[in-house]
Amino acid sequence: MPGVKISEDWKDNLRVVMVATRNPLNIGAAARAMANFGFSRLRVVKAYDVAFREARSAVGAAPLLASAQDFANLADAVADGRLVVGTTSAGRRELQHPLRRLEYGARLIRRALAEAPVALLFGSEKFGLSNEDMSHCHWLMRIPTVDPALSMNLGQAVALCLYELARDPKAVEAGPRKIRAAAAGDNEQITTLLMDVLRRSGYVNPVTAASTEEKVRRLVRRLDIAARDAPVLLGMLRQILWKVGG
Amino acid sequence: MPGVKISEDWKDNLRVVMVATRNPLNIGAAARAMANFGFSRLRVVKAYDVAFREARSAVGAAPLLASAQDFANLADAVADGRLVVGTTSAGRRELQHPLRRLEYGARLIRRALAEAPVALLFGSEKFGLSNEDMSHCHWLMRIPTVDPALSMNLGQAVALCLYELARDPKAVEAGPRKIRAAAAGDNEQITTLLMDVLRRSGYVNPVTAASTEEKVRRLVRRLDIAARDAPVLLGMLRQILWKVGG
Repeated sequence: MPGVKISEDWKDNLRVVMVATRNPLNIGAAARAMANFGFSRLRVVKAYDVAFREARSAVGAAPLLASAQDFANLADAVADGRLVVGTTSAGRRELQHPLRRLEYGARLIRRALAEAPVALLFGSEKFGLSNEDMSHCHWLMRIPTVDPALSMNLGQAVALCLYELARDPKAVEAGPRKIRAAAAGDNEQITTLLMDVLRRSGYVNPVTAASTEEKVRRLVRRLDIAARDAPVLLGMLRQILWKVGG
Repeated sequence: MPGVKISEDWKDNLRVVMVATRNPLNIGAAARAMANFGFSRLRVVKAYDVAFREARSAVGAAPLLASAQDFANLADAVADGRLVVGTTSAGRRELQHPLRRLEYGARLIRRALAEAPVALLFGSEKFGLSNEDMSHCHWLMRIPTVDPALSMNLGQAVALCLYELARDPKAVEAGPRKIRAAAAGDNEQITTLLMDVLRRSGYVNPVTAASTEEKVRRLVRRLDIAARDAPVLLGMLRQILWKVGG
């Protein structure tokens, strides 16, 4: 598929299938989300507006949209899938299928993607998947919104499903990129200069000077100054000290 | 806030702050995603188009949009936040802040939300947050897309951040809603009827009949028939058996 970057093999097994989408902008938004998370195989079934390939909402995903496959019926669009999963807000009708939450369903889909093609279906903006569409599915997946009566935006729903599929559970534990802390010597130099400034500014009562110095020292440590900020602060303090007559 | 359902107290501590948003439809999409995941406090700073309250993209979130607060500058919009976090695609510039992935950042935000207000900032569609906007932030959060050069749709980015905040890690382990399996007696009745049909249809070689029956029995168990499907299948088989001369 030229122009479409495939970062991981298992992702190439996913077919995102948009069924009876009314607004081409939503197909474009789905393509953009796919590109954002490294998926590339988009299939469109019975789109209301066949001009979807021109959707400006695809932004950087135009090549992916250009390579999308167009199908006249759902059976053909999912034919190579070993697992077929429908998405639903589950607010509208009695479901005849097992219904799984996105967090759990995505885990099952990821496992299946390691071995074989999986089709993930999204219905129309207004009606979602029809009962006939759902009858092609092994099970259904629900995004855990608080109010099932309030449907999700289609482009947002696609983005959430792909994010959850690509999500790295280990990243929850990963620490932040560390900011190197100032050395204790820098902190002490800042403390000393700040005390000088405060003394010359008349802030320090000579009787309680020792306890004030301890307070200032603790305060400086609580600031958790970054290594790169220490020289900036020292420069500021030296300048102020000069001004107050150091 | 009338008309806005607040399901959990900690969620009421989140302020979603849209900075310099160009397209009112994206503010509407953000409002809809907030309603989807149970958040309610939307703040808008320096919107390009002040008609955002009429955004049709809000769909069921019109009350939330109507109660949005409008600010002329960012400092006022985040003033009550004990933690201020900016979102970024991190593809554009040297960042002067600690940068955390969404999975980990959301965990820190959730912890902070339990105690105090948190402001979560989203920049404009075209430029994201400016360096000046970011200087109001304690740290930045990045959605883990595969290509940092390809930005996300703003409405999708808001939806992903709110989903991750509301996400239930325990749901990854939760089993599906169980479909009650057919009783062993039903499976055996189906096996017996199917064998009768196969015998009368000339499928069964009398010499290997015993081994065929075992194969059929195992096949029926592998089908994992649901309790409610058993009577349907039995009805079909009885009708076929009648037709083949049972």
